Amino acid sequence: MEYRRIKDQDKIGDPVNEDIESLRGKPILDVAAPYDKTKWKMKSVVTLALTFLTSSQAILIVWSKRAGRYEYSVTTANFLVEALKCALSLVALGRIWRTEGVTDDNRLSTTVDEVSVYPIPAALYLVKNLLQYYIFAYVDAPGYQILKNLNIISTGVLYRIILKKKLSEIQWAAFILLCAGCTTAQLNPSSDHVLQTPFLGWMMAIVMALLSGFAGVYTEAIIKKRPSRNINVQNFWLYVFGMAFNLIAILVQDFDAVVNKGFFHGYSPITVLMIINHALSGIAVSMVMKYADNIVKVYSTSVAMLLTAVVSVFLFNFHLSLAFFLGSTVVSVSIYLHSIGKLQR
Amino acid sequence: MEYRRIKDQDKIGDPVNEDIESLRGKPILDVAAPYDKTKWKMKSVVTLALTFLTSSQAILIVWSKRAGRYEYSVTTANFLVEALKCALSLVALGRIWRTEGVTDDNRLSTTVDEVSVYPIPAALYLVKNLLQYYIFAYVDAPGYQILKNLNIISTGVLYRIILKKKLSEIQWAAFILLCAGCTTAQLNPSSDHVLQTPFLGWMMAIVMALLSGFAGVYTEAIIKKRPSRNINVQNFWLYVFGMAFNLIAILVQDFDAVVNKGFFHGYSPITVLMIINHALSGIAVSMVMKYADNIVKVYSTSVAMLLTAVVSVFLFNFHLSLAFFLGSTVVSVSIYLHSIGKLQR
Repeated sequence: MEYRRIKDQDKIGDPVNEDIESLRGKPILDVAAPYDKTKWKMKSVVTLALTFLTSSQAILIVWSKRAGRYEYSVTTANFLVEALKCALSLVALGRIWRTEGVTDDNRLSTTVDEVSVYPIPAALYLVKNLLQYYIFAYVDAPGYQILKNLNIISTGVLYRIILKKKLSEIQWAAFILLCAGCTTAQLNPSSDHVLQTPFLGWMMAIVMALLSGFAGVYTEAIIKKRPSRNINVQNFWLYVFGMAFNLIAILVQDFDAVVNKGFFHGYSPITVLMIINHALSGIAVSMVMKYADNIVKVYSTSVAMLLTAVVSVFLFNFHLSLAFFLGSTVVSVSIYLHSIGKLQR
Repeated sequence: MEYRRIKDQDKIGDPVNEDIESLRGKPILDVAAPYDKTKWKMKSVVTLALTFLTSSQAILIVWSKRAGRYEYSVTTANFLVEALKCALSLVALGRIWRTEGVTDDNRLSTTVDEVSVYPIPAALYLVKNLLQYYIFAYVDAPGYQILKNLNIISTGVLYRIILKKKLSEIQWAAFILLCAGCTTAQLNPSSDHVLQTPFLGWMMAIVMALLSGFAGVYTEAIIKKRPSRNINVQNFWLYVFGMAFNLIAILVQDFDAVVNKGFFHGYSPITVLMIINHALSGIAVSMVMKYADNIVKVYSTSVAMLLTAVVSVFLFNFHLSLAFFLGSTVVSVSIYLHSIGKLQR
C-alpha cells in the first residue's frame, strides 16, 4: 500500500523525524540549541495561527447563521477555498523563487512517484463529506457535533499505527481526557439523544472518524516524507487535487443549481470572509503537519473550540454551562499532562 | 493549635509514616516484602469494604426514598449509628483482650493528653451538619450534591497542608480530574442552576467542604499519631464523642419530637438497615484512615458513587446519561494516573 512506501522511505533517511527522535534521549536543556529553537518557534507560531483561525472560523459560522440561512452552494465555496489555497501557495513560491532562485526543493515540476500519493487525502475527505449527507438520517446536528469528537481518538490511534510514533502512557491518558473533555464541554440538555443513535449511525460516525483521521495522518506522512521539499510546493499539489475532487462534488451535487442560478448565487461579504478564513486555516493545518504533527493539530483545534465558546459569551451573549467549565478543566489538565508526559518518557 | 501538636509528635517517631516514606526510594520489587504485602492486603480489603458499603448506602437511600418519605428523626438515627459503632468497637476489643491479653496498646483507659483531640472531628461534623440546614436556603438538593464535590479538592489541599504529605504533579492533576469527573457524572439538565448560586451559598459550600475535609484529615492525624495503638480503642474514643455531640444535636433540633412521639418514631426495617450500614461504613472509614489515607478514602467513595449509578440501572431502571459515561471515563483515567503518578515520583 501507498503509506507503506512512504514509511519505508522515512526509515531510510528523514532528517526531520531523525531530529525529533534524537531529542528524546537528550537532556531537556539541549532543546534550547539554536536550530531547535527556530523549529520550536515555527511550531508555536503555526500552532497559534491554527488555533486563532479555527476559532474565528467557528465564530464566522455562528455569525453567518445569525445573518440568515445558507443560500450559497457549499460545494462551490469549498472549490474556491481550494483554489485560493492554491493561489496563495503560488504567490509564496513566487517570492521564494525571486529571493532564493529555483532549486530542486522548491521547483514546482515533480515526478509521478512524488505526486501519486497527493490525491489520496483529497479523495478521503470527499468520501467523508459525501457520507456526511447520509449520517443526518440517523443523528441530528448537535448529536453529530458530539460524535465528531471520535476524530480525536481515531487520529491518535492512526497516528500511532501509520506514522509509528509513540505516545507515552501519560500522553495516551491525556488524549482520552481530551476527547472526554471536549465532549463534556459541548454537552447540552438534549445531548443524551446521541446514546439512542442506531447501530448504523454509530458505524457511519466511526467510519467518518477513521476517514478523517486517516486523511490527516496521511497528509502528515506525505508532507514529512520529503522534509527538505518546500511546503508551498507540497501544498500546491495537495490543493490542486483538492480542487479536482471538489469539482467532482459540484458536478455530482450542485450541477443544476450552478447552471440555473450561477456559480456565485447567494454569496455575501460574510461568505467571502469564510472562504478566506477556511483557506488560511487549511494552510495553517499543512504548516502544523510540516513543523509539528497531528497531535498538535488536534490539541490546537480543541482549544479553539473552547476559545470560541468564551468569545461567543462577549459577542453573542452566549451562556457558558457547568458542563463547559468541567470540560474545559479536563481539557486543560489534558494539555498539562501531554506536556509533562513528553519529558517523562 | 491541636493539630500542630500531632504533627510534631509525628516527626519525632511515626513507624507507619516512616514505613511509607522509606518505600519511595526503593525499587518497586521491594514492595512485595512480607510486611508490606500484609499492609497492602489490609489496605485493599478496607478500601474495597468502604467502596462496597458506601455504594450500598446510596442504594439504601434511594430505596428508602421510593418506599416513602423520611418519618424518623435523622438526629436519633445518627446517635444510634455512633452508639452501634461504639458497641462494635467494644466487641472487637473484647475478642482481642481474650486472645492477646490487655496491653498498653489495646487498653481502653487513656490519658487526657491522648483523648483531648478526639472530640474535634465530631465537633467539626456537628457544625457541618448544622450548616447543612441553612445552605438549602441558597441551593436545591441536586445542586448541593454537585457542590459537595468541592470536598475532593478541600481534602486534597488540607491533606497536603496539615499532614504535610506530598502528592506528585501527576497525582494533583489526577485529583482535579477526580473532582471534575465526579461532578460531570452527576450532571443533569438542571445542573446549570448551580452557577446561579448566590455568593453566600458559595461561601457556605466552601466552608462546609473545608470543615468536612478538615474533619477527615484531622481524624487521620489522630489515628496515625499512635500507629501501634489498637484501632478499636481509637475508634471507641472517636465514637464516644460522636455520641455526645449527636446527643446535643437531638436536644437542639428534635427534643420536642422525641419527647412527644418517642425516640424510635417512624423507624422501619429499612431505617435499621441504614443505621447498620452507616455504622459499618463509619468503621471502614476509620480503617482506611489507619491503613491507607484520606486520598484513598476519596477515591473509594467516588468509585462507590459510580458503582451506585450502574447498580441502580438494574435495580431501579435508572438511565445512564452521556455525562455519566464521560465522567466515569475521566474518573477511571484519574485512578490510573494516581497509580502511575506514585511510581514516577
